[in-house]
Amino acid sequence: MSNSPYPLLDQIKFPSDLKKLQVTQLNALCDELREFIIDEMCTNPGHFGASLGAVELAVALHYIYNTPYDQIVWDTGHQAYAHKILTGRKDIFHTNRKMGGLSGFPKREESIYDAFGVGHASTSISAALGITTAAKMNNDKDRRTVAIIGDGSLTGGLAFEGLNQAGHLNSNILVILNDNNMAIDPNVGALNDYLTHITISKTYNKIKTDVWNAMGRLHKFGPKTRSAVQKIENGLKSILMHQGNLFEALHFRYFGPVDGHNIRQLVNILSDLKDIPGPKLLHIMTTKGKGYKFAEENKTIWHAPGKFNKETGEIVASSDNKNKPPRYQDVFGLTILELAKTNKKIVGITPAMPTGCSLNIMMQEMPDRCFDVGIAEEHAVTFAAGMATQGLVPFCNIYSSFAQRAYDQIIHDVALQGLQVVFCFDRGGLVGEDGATHHGVFDMAFLRCVPNIIIAAPMNEVELRNMMYTAQHKNYGPFAIRYPRGAGVTVDWIQPFTEMAIGKGRKVSDGEKIAILSVGHPGNFVQSAIQKLETEHQVKPAHYDMRFVKPIDTDILDEVFSSFGKIITIEDGTIVGGFGSAVIEYAMEKGYKGQIVRMGVPDKFIEHGTVAELHHLCGFDAEGIARKVLEMI
Amino acid sequence: MSNSPYPLLDQIKFPSDLKKLQVTQLNALCDELREFIIDEMCTNPGHFGASLGAVELAVALHYIYNTPYDQIVWDTGHQAYAHKILTGRKDIFHTNRKMGGLSGFPKREESIYDAFGVGHASTSISAALGITTAAKMNNDKDRRTVAIIGDGSLTGGLAFEGLNQAGHLNSNILVILNDNNMAIDPNVGALNDYLTHITISKTYNKIKTDVWNAMGRLHKFGPKTRSAVQKIENGLKSILMHQGNLFEALHFRYFGPVDGHNIRQLVNILSDLKDIPGPKLLHIMTTKGKGYKFAEENKTIWHAPGKFNKETGEIVASSDNKNKPPRYQDVFGLTILELAKTNKKIVGITPAMPTGCSLNIMMQEMPDRCFDVGIAEEHAVTFAAGMATQGLVPFCNIYSSFAQRAYDQIIHDVALQGLQVVFCFDRGGLVGEDGATHHGVFDMAFLRCVPNIIIAAPMNEVELRNMMYTAQHKNYGPFAIRYPRGAGVTVDWIQPFTEMAIGKGRKVSDGEKIAILSVGHPGNFVQSAIQKLETEHQVKPAHYDMRFVKPIDTDILDEVFSSFGKIITIEDGTIVGGFGSAVIEYAMEKGYKGQIVRMGVPDKFIEHGTVAELHHLCGFDAEGIARKVLEMI
Repeated sequence: MSNSPYPLLDQIKFPSDLKKLQVTQLNALCDELREFIIDEMCTNPGHFGASLGAVELAVALHYIYNTPYDQIVWDTGHQAYAHKILTGRKDIFHTNRKMGGLSGFPKREESIYDAFGVGHASTSISAALGITTAAKMNNDKDRRTVAIIGDGSLTGGLAFEGLNQAGHLNSNILVILNDNNMAIDPNVGALNDYLTHITISKTYNKIKTDVWNAMGRLHKFGPKTRSAVQKIENGLKSILMHQGNLFEALHFRYFGPVDGHNIRQLVNILSDLKDIPGPKLLHIMTTKGKGYKFAEENKTIWHAPGKFNKETGEIVASSDNKNKPPRYQDVFGLTILELAKTNKKIVGITPAMPTGCSLNIMMQEMPDRCFDVGIAEEHAVTFAAGMATQGLVPFCNIYSSFAQRAYDQIIHDVALQGLQVVFCFDRGGLVGEDGATHHGVFDMAFLRCVPNIIIAAPMNEVELRNMMYTAQHKNYGPFAIRYPRGAGVTVDWIQPFTEMAIGKGRKVSDGEKIAILSVGHPGNFVQSAIQKLETEHQVKPAHYDMRFVKPIDTDILDEVFSSFGKIITIEDGTIVGGFGSAVIEYAMEKGYKGQIVRMGVPDKFIEHGTVAELHHLCGFDAEGIARKVLEMI
Repeated sequence: MSNSPYPLLDQIKFPSDLKKLQVTQLNALCDELREFIIDEMCTNPGHFGASLGAVELAVALHYIYNTPYDQIVWDTGHQAYAHKILTGRKDIFHTNRKMGGLSGFPKREESIYDAFGVGHASTSISAALGITTAAKMNNDKDRRTVAIIGDGSLTGGLAFEGLNQAGHLNSNILVILNDNNMAIDPNVGALNDYLTHITISKTYNKIKTDVWNAMGRLHKFGPKTRSAVQKIENGLKSILMHQGNLFEALHFRYFGPVDGHNIRQLVNILSDLKDIPGPKLLHIMTTKGKGYKFAEENKTIWHAPGKFNKETGEIVASSDNKNKPPRYQDVFGLTILELAKTNKKIVGITPAMPTGCSLNIMMQEMPDRCFDVGIAEEHAVTFAAGMATQGLVPFCNIYSSFAQRAYDQIIHDVALQGLQVVFCFDRGGLVGEDGATHHGVFDMAFLRCVPNIIIAAPMNEVELRNMMYTAQHKNYGPFAIRYPRGAGVTVDWIQPFTEMAIGKGRKVSDGEKIAILSVGHPGNFVQSAIQKLETEHQVKPAHYDMRFVKPIDTDILDEVFSSFGKIITIEDGTIVGGFGSAVIEYAMEKGYKGQIVRMGVPDKFIEHGTVAELHHLCGFDAEGIARKVLEMI
C-alpha cells in the first residue's frame, strides 16, 4: 500500500483509528484528506468549497471528542465530507450523492456518527441544545455536544432562537462558528459586518491571544482561578473593542477568532474547551475551497462546481450550451431584468441565493433594486410584504423546499392582506442529487389550501416568462410561480410577452379515450409519452397543460369531464393534496363518474439520485406515463 | 358634554385633533384613554394588559409622527387599542372583536392608520424595513417608519432576521422595544436576561441619562458634533457596562432604557429621534396592565381576562364550571402530567404559551421536564427533534396557526427523520374572536402531504387523552394531535387510558342513505344534527368519527363506499386539501361512484366572531349539517 497517495488516511476507518495518530501527524492527514476530496470531486461532483474549508475542523473534532458517544451536529451539512470520510465511509465515498449511495448531507440512517440529519440551514444549535438537554436528563453526564454553524447560517432566525435558549439554560453546549465570510454567495447583514469587525481588530486579537494562552494554562486550576481569568478576559475585550460581544450578551462565553486551518491550535483549543462548563462559542476563521487555489479564488462558483480538471481548474461544462434550451433559473434572471427595465416598481429579493436563482443578473445592472437578505426566508417574505404595501412589486425568489420556512409569512403577511408579492419558487419538484431535504415537492399542496393566492407552474420557458409578465402587469394579489431546477425545452425562448388569462390552461394536443392533465414541466414528459404511444401503439390520449393549480381551469375540466371517461393528472409534487387532488375535488363537486388517476410524487420521502432517475422511480417520466395509459385502456 | 368622563378624549377623532393638544394635556389624555379602555373591556372582553401598557406610547407616536403618512407598524397588535381609539375608531370600539366589528388587531382593510396587519408575533421589524426601503425607492424622503416590538416578540427569529438586514441597509427605521418583561407569560431566554441587565444597571442609567440630555441639546448642531456625542456615548456605555450593546453590534444606535409611561419624556425623545438618520432602537420600559392595579399584580391572567368587575377586579367566570366539561387545554395539561408521572421519557415544550396551552400544570410539578422556549416555534420543534434523538418523548404544544411558523422544522427535522415527537396542535379550527390571523384551519391540509406523520383529531376529551396515551406508549414516529380551543363535551372525562389503533375510526351511530364522516370536535355537531333530523324529519344518517386524518381508516371507507350512495365529510379546517380531500382521494382510487360533499372552512379567510357564529357562517354547525342532509336526500 506504500503507493497509495493517502498512506495515513488509508489507516483510518473510524475515529478510533484517528486517535492513534500523533498530533504531529494531523497536518499530513489533513493534506491527504483534502487531496482525497479533490480527487473524488473532480469526477464525482459535490459540495466542494465548504468541505475543503472544514477538513481541519472535522479532524480536530473526531481527534478530541469521543464520537459517536459525543454528538457532533453539523449545520446544513454540505461541509461534512471529511467527517463522512473519517467515519467509515471513505470506501464508498465515490457513491456520494448517487442513487442508492451516500447522501450529500449527514443523515441519521446512514451512520451512527451523524447525530442529526441536516440539509436546510440554521438547525444545528437548536438540535444540539435538544441533545445536550436530553443527555443531562438521561444522566449521560460525560456526553459532550457540539454544534457547528456557518456565518451564513447564523443569519437564520432559527439559529438565534437556539442561541437565546441555550444561553438561558446554561447548557454545556459548544457552538463552533465556522466563519468563511460566505453563504453560497458572499454573506450579508449586520451580523456579518460585526463578525468581520471582531476578526480584523488587530489589537484585540493580539491581547486576546495572550489572554487565551494564560487561560489555557490556568483554567484547570479550579473555579476561582477560572473566574478571575474570565473577568480579565472579558474586561480586556470590552475595553479594546469599545464594544462588547454579542454572544456574551446571550450568555455564551466567546472564544476566538482562531485560524480554522491550524490543526495544532484547533486540537489544543477543543481539548481545553471540552472541560469548560456552560455555553461556549468558538469562532474559527476558515477559507472556502482551502488548499485548492482555483476554489479559493472564486468561492461562489466552487461551492458546487460539477466535474472539473484537477490540474487546470477548468470546470467541465456538462455539454456545449449553444443551441440548447436555457435553465429555468436563467430565464427567471434575464426576464426579471427585462421586466424591471420597464416596470420601475419591480424589486428582486432572494434569501442568500442570488447566484443559484440567477437574480445576480439583475443585481449587476440594478444593485439598488435587488436585495439579498441572507439566509432568512421568513424575513424575505415579510420584507416583501412591507414593500408591497408601498406599491412596489417584489419578486421574491425562494427555493421551493426553503419556502417551507416562510409558510406562515406567506399566509399571514401576504395572502391574508392580499398583497401583490410575486413568489418565484425555484427548484420546485424533485431536485436530484441534493435529495430528500431539498426536493420541492410539497409546495402545491401547502399553497393550495391558502386563500387569495394564485399558483402557476410553467411547462416551458415561454410560459415562465409570460407568467412573470402577467404577475406584474396587473395587481392580482399574491402570485406564486413554481418551476424546476435545470434546463427547459425551448431554444428560441425569448418571445414577446403575452398576458396570460388567470386560471386558464390550454389544450396541447387532441386525443381520445384518455385525457392527460399536467401542470408544469412534466407536461413535456406527457408529450414524449404521447409520441411513443402514437408511434408504437396507435394510442393517442389528449393532453392539457393546465398552467394554474389555483384557480384551476374549470372550463377545461368541464370539457374533459364531459368528453373523457378516464383522466390522468401529472405533477412534479406530492400526489397527496396537490394538483391532482384539486382536479378530483372539482370532479366530485360536478359528479364526474369516470376514473381519475393521479401521478406524481408518492407519499414518502424520496432520496437522492439524478432528476431523471427520480422521475423514473416515481413513475411519471415518459415511460411511466405511457405504461399507465396502456394499463388504463 | 361636560358630564362625559372623557372630556379630552371626546375631542379627538383623529391624530390631527390630538396634535392640537398641549404637551401638558397629554397626561390627562392618557388617563382618560386608560379609563375608556377599562370601561370598555370590563363588559366587552379583549386584550387588556398589553393595551394598558401601551397607552402613552400610542399617544406619543401619533402626537409626534405625521400619521398616516408616517408608518407605524405594531407587532402582534394586541397592544394597539389606544392606537385604534385615537385613529377614528373610538365610537365603534364597543364592536371590538365582535362579528362584523373591529378586529382585535391592526388590519389594513380597517383603517389607513393600520400600516401593516398583524396578529402573529415578530413581524414588525421586517415589515417596517420593507416599508422604509420602499419609501426610499419611491422618493418619499419625509416618510418615517416606526416598528414597535415587545421583548417577548423579540425572541422570535424573524425579528432577528429583520434587525440583521435593517442594520446592514443603514435604513432610517426606528424600532421601539416595548419591554414589559412579559410575553403572555413571563418572558424567557438569554435575551430577556440581557434586557433586564441593561435595565437595572443603575450607574449605567444615570450616566446614560446625562449623556442623553447632552445629546438632546447637541444633536441638532450638525454631523461633527453628533459624531462626537455618539462616540462619548458609546464609549461610556461599553466601559460602564463591561459589555457593549447587542443592538449596536447590529449597527443600531441604542437609546434607553426610558420609562414608557412618562409621556413628556417619550414625546421629547421621539421628537429628537425623528431627525436622527440610520437605524435606531429605543428601549422603553412599560408595565403590562399599567394603571389598573389588579392587572399590574397578575399580568398573565390579565393578558385577556374576559369580563370583569371594574371596582373589585373580580373576573366574571363565564358560568359555573362545576359539572361542566373541561376545556381541551386542561385535558392536555392534566393528562400530560399524568402520563409523565409514569413515563419518565416525557418532556413538555411550549413556545411561550404555558398558561394558554395549560402546560403550566405540569410545569408546577415538574419544572425540570418542561421547557418554555419563548416565542420561537421553529426552535421549539428542532429542539424537540434533538431531544427525540436521545430517546426522550417530547410533547411539543403549539397553537395550530403558529405551527405554520414551524412547518419546515416539522418536515425537515422531525418527519424526515421519523422521530417520535408528539405535536399537540392546540387551537385547531376556528378560534373565534382573534379572527383571521389566529384560526387554525390549515393544519390538516399542510400536514397531510407530509410523509411519515400521523394526524389525529379527537371528538372529545376521552379521545384526546387516549390519543396522547397512544402517542407516547409506543414509538410511532411523528404524531400530531389537533384539538380546538375551549370546552369539550364530557363531564366525566377522566377515564382509564385505552390504547387506540392507529388510523382507525369508529362508528358512532348507524343510519341509512347518507354516511357522515367527521374528524375531531365537529363530530358533536353531527350528533346534534342527527338528533334533530331523527326527531323532526325521521331521517337518520349514519355517523363515523374517523379520529385519524392520516393514515385514514380505509376499512371504514370501504364499508361506507359499499353501503352508502351519499357521503358528507365534516372538518373544522379548510376543505381544500384537508380531511375531506383525503376521503375523496381514496374514493377515486377505489372507483366510488356515489356523491361526496365536503363541509368545513371554505376557501377564504374567515374573520372574527364567536366560535359558534363562525361555525354557523361556514355552515357546519348542527343546523347547517342537518340542512345539508335534507338537501341531499
